[in-house]
Amino acid sequence: MLKKVDHIGIAVHSIDSVKQFYSRTFRMKPVFEEEVAEQKVRVVGFQIGETRLEYLEPTAKDSPIAKFLSKKGEGIHHIAVQVDDIAHALQTLKNNGVQLIDEHPRVGAEGKKIAFVHPKSVNGVLLELSQE
Amino acid sequence: MLKKVDHIGIAVHSIDSVKQFYSRTFRMKPVFEEEVAEQKVRVVGFQIGETRLEYLEPTAKDSPIAKFLSKKGEGIHHIAVQVDDIAHALQTLKNNGVQLIDEHPRVGAEGKKIAFVHPKSVNGVLLELSQE
Repeated sequence: MLKKVDHIGIAVHSIDSVKQFYSRTFRMKPVFEEEVAEQKVRVVGFQIGETRLEYLEPTAKDSPIAKFLSKKGEGIHHIAVQVDDIAHALQTLKNNGVQLIDEHPRVGAEGKKIAFVHPKSVNGVLLELSQE
Repeated sequence: MLKKVDHIGIAVHSIDSVKQFYSRTFRMKPVFEEEVAEQKVRVVGFQIGETRLEYLEPTAKDSPIAKFLSKKGEGIHHIAVQVDDIAHALQTLKNNGVQLIDEHPRVGAEGKKIAFVHPKSVNGVLLELSQE
């Protein structure tokens, strides 16, 4: 049911600094870069094996990532796990008493179906499920 | 140079609860379970694709994980990235001004060479490098 760690989302103040760091240190270029208007973030992703490290910089003060940064500072914001059948996964979690943020999948970046699970139910980790 | 996300370390109060949750919800068994006396933790690992989620429960009050839990609660503690040549990776990071916790690799679980990088230098993420 759980296929791979699709990505790890990391809240940062400046994705430009991150890009410079990867370029200088590892000679790595991002595999994508985009602005997600709905979440008020700019995102840059670096591929490491089958997982992307996705760095998230807020574009507005009321962005969820801006709030995270002011409360906790830079660091890991969420992890995303790819599943075969997200509707089935959500139902299974719900049947086992897990608190969901999204009861039904919604469309995320690259047209994927995504849904968030509440960190209180899964050991303090904000968990995103995604389906290709 | 960066091969894959080897594992994600998650601090928890009870790995028994985690095992029950995975068994009940995903019908998944741990791929390993061990006590690391040096770190004063019990660890249980679940394989998701090429990455393991490793849950860490302290075995003593002065365990680093006990301190993390009392300060921040349950959540992601570190991520580990596999590299080909850890000595070279550490030197490269150092040359680029990155603050290292371990200047030289030491032997970790399963005989791997490991070293930690200070979160201040890498966007608030406690980063472990590991070499098979």
